[in-house]
Amino acid sequence: MALIVQKFGGTSVGSVERIQNVARQVAETVEQGHQVVVVVSAMSGETNRLTALAQEIQERPNKREMDVLLTTGEQVTIALLSMALQARGTDAISFTGWQVPIQTDMVHSKARIEHIEAENIKDELAKDKVVVVAGFQGVTMQGGISTLGRGGSDTTAVALAAALNADECQIYTDVDGVYTTDPRVEPKAKRLDQITYDEMLELASLGAKVLQIRSVEFASKYNVPLRVLSSLQPGGGTLITSEDNFKETNMEKPLISGIAFSRDEAKLMILGVPDKPGVAYQILGPISDANIEIDMIIQNQGVDGTTDFTFTVSRGDMAAALDILKSTANKLGAREVLSDDTIVKLSMVGVGMKSHSGIASTMFKVLAENDINIQMIGTTEIKISVVIGESHLELAVQELHEAFELDK
Amino acid sequence: MALIVQKFGGTSVGSVERIQNVARQVAETVEQGHQVVVVVSAMSGETNRLTALAQEIQERPNKREMDVLLTTGEQVTIALLSMALQARGTDAISFTGWQVPIQTDMVHSKARIEHIEAENIKDELAKDKVVVVAGFQGVTMQGGISTLGRGGSDTTAVALAAALNADECQIYTDVDGVYTTDPRVEPKAKRLDQITYDEMLELASLGAKVLQIRSVEFASKYNVPLRVLSSLQPGGGTLITSEDNFKETNMEKPLISGIAFSRDEAKLMILGVPDKPGVAYQILGPISDANIEIDMIIQNQGVDGTTDFTFTVSRGDMAAALDILKSTANKLGAREVLSDDTIVKLSMVGVGMKSHSGIASTMFKVLAENDINIQMIGTTEIKISVVIGESHLELAVQELHEAFELDK
Repeated sequence: MALIVQKFGGTSVGSVERIQNVARQVAETVEQGHQVVVVVSAMSGETNRLTALAQEIQERPNKREMDVLLTTGEQVTIALLSMALQARGTDAISFTGWQVPIQTDMVHSKARIEHIEAENIKDELAKDKVVVVAGFQGVTMQGGISTLGRGGSDTTAVALAAALNADECQIYTDVDGVYTTDPRVEPKAKRLDQITYDEMLELASLGAKVLQIRSVEFASKYNVPLRVLSSLQPGGGTLITSEDNFKETNMEKPLISGIAFSRDEAKLMILGVPDKPGVAYQILGPISDANIEIDMIIQNQGVDGTTDFTFTVSRGDMAAALDILKSTANKLGAREVLSDDTIVKLSMVGVGMKSHSGIASTMFKVLAENDINIQMIGTTEIKISVVIGESHLELAVQELHEAFELDK
Repeated sequence: MALIVQKFGGTSVGSVERIQNVARQVAETVEQGHQVVVVVSAMSGETNRLTALAQEIQERPNKREMDVLLTTGEQVTIALLSMALQARGTDAISFTGWQVPIQTDMVHSKARIEHIEAENIKDELAKDKVVVVAGFQGVTMQGGISTLGRGGSDTTAVALAAALNADECQIYTDVDGVYTTDPRVEPKAKRLDQITYDEMLELASLGAKVLQIRSVEFASKYNVPLRVLSSLQPGGGTLITSEDNFKETNMEKPLISGIAFSRDEAKLMILGVPDKPGVAYQILGPISDANIEIDMIIQNQGVDGTTDFTFTVSRGDMAAALDILKSTANKLGAREVLSDDTIVKLSMVGVGMKSHSGIASTMFKVLAENDINIQMIGTTEIKISVVIGESHLELAVQELHEAFELDK
């Protein structure tokens, strides 16, 4: 008998029929002899409906009251799912965030979980009940209703799994796992059976929308085995665990786990800046002050006492960043400012890079053989990212996927 | 400066526009220098929507989960009303039932309030905030979400007013007060400025739908001045207080406050029953056992050692009661069983009856002068009820209204 936390998102509980379908899946897990805690989101569309009501009243409603409003969404789902389980003879009980309680800090609309008191849930599990918990919500020390912000239900599920010392936390989504790359770009993309937390974090931060970064961080911190799987089709999905787990299970860890890419990239260049100490801050400071997030940064020192800066931002931020950069260029006496929003970022991720050299040079060789020019390079311990022209994206992904045998 | 509890029902908060209208009314009370606690129901239609979802799953859903589901309705309203108040510059904060907390017993779907901890509300009032409280809901000692059953929001308002020792509890409805009788039957019916708890209880139990009986009982028990007024048109409404309050304000208390009537009445007779001890129980017991409520009862002893029983029930229960009565008549050897569903009950209510004699005889005289036959009579300390033929109802109400000068 294992203790399993299962999380179902808004689409999976989007109608009474779908809620009954979730009840069936949960009941099957119970019939296999497991204890189950289910975490659910609001029915799809409900959060938008409530937000629209609030915005009829005020453009920026008070965050405390917004949390009071939005948390009704999951409260409806936990009641209906508990009823659906009871209707098929599976004993169940619902808990809101404050009933667990899931203690959070005071930051309404994006609170962080500080502590979960697991006794109430354990008591109900001991009575052979399925416990249905409202995702996304918690309670502050002052007894206020809080929400965890975007992707909060995933975080609730992982945090509960950690607090209950669960054997596995299963996140049901509309995809059946994590893939070596986007199957729309490379039809030979393969589902990964297993991947490490660090790799998943890199993939998520690069735009793989399977899991929220925060929930993966949480799982990593508390070493909660996390499984992504489909609520629509059967299959084991992708298990996300620590590197140690690969060793324990004697599973062969591939060098590269996946290729991620992001089209939401734009490049800005400021050329011929007189090179003095502090010039980087003078250029990038005003951009950050405007709440524009800077991703990759490259500085090239010239021979004539000047220097060139290149950095990337989201495409939506390019126009604003360009204005700021032009004004900075005037101040510093720079020669030229350029921008380009026809670029993409492509990244190869794999913990194997830590111990295997030569991956970067293989990557560069593959791109060169296909006449793909690399505009920028950035690396971390388990990731190599390159900026290339947008038109080369499909070719680059397909050639790299084959060269690193990700389809095998 | 007074502390006022204001309650608005589902129709008054049925749309964003109406919620903004309620916010305007509350803000006006604040501008007059008062502290205000507002109690609100779910937006009209919402409870039906949620109930329909539950019944798609199960005909008789678990009551605990049903309470979890339905209480989201008021939670939405408190958030939206707080936002609407803030949007117009009136500081406000919302409280769910468990946040107050409003402690109830464990009877889900019709819980009774056991205790209200008023400190949280008082703290917010001291910060010059309007406190918006979800009606109809509470929390059990075990931390479960409970609801108070029908008319629960009125009860919440009165109970809060008692716990806060408020100066007045104002119930906003779609009528502008309590009338001497139904204006649809007697156009000269007048709104009463003031009425006692006991009179209001009699009127409510006789079908005046203005207030829930339970909330009036609560107000009476804790001596909370209760005012019924319209959320649509201005006016002082009707104040419901103790008899002592009339004396204190030197207000002249009329002998009769109002004439109530009920068309939902049917009469059953069992004639020529051999008169033995216990015969009343043998006749009425089986009716009660079938969950049929018996209202008025009359027993006439005959001269031949037999007795006649007459009693009234709701019209919908007449057929079932008649079947039971026929079977009882067979068993007891009664002569005849009769039924009549063309009757009505008309009642005159007034605390003045306690000290003034002659009201009953005046009433009987007025009815006799108009050729209206009285079929049954029942009295309490402050009420005289008569059963008459349905066709005489309008005439009886109009003549009595004039005879007792209720239009003056």
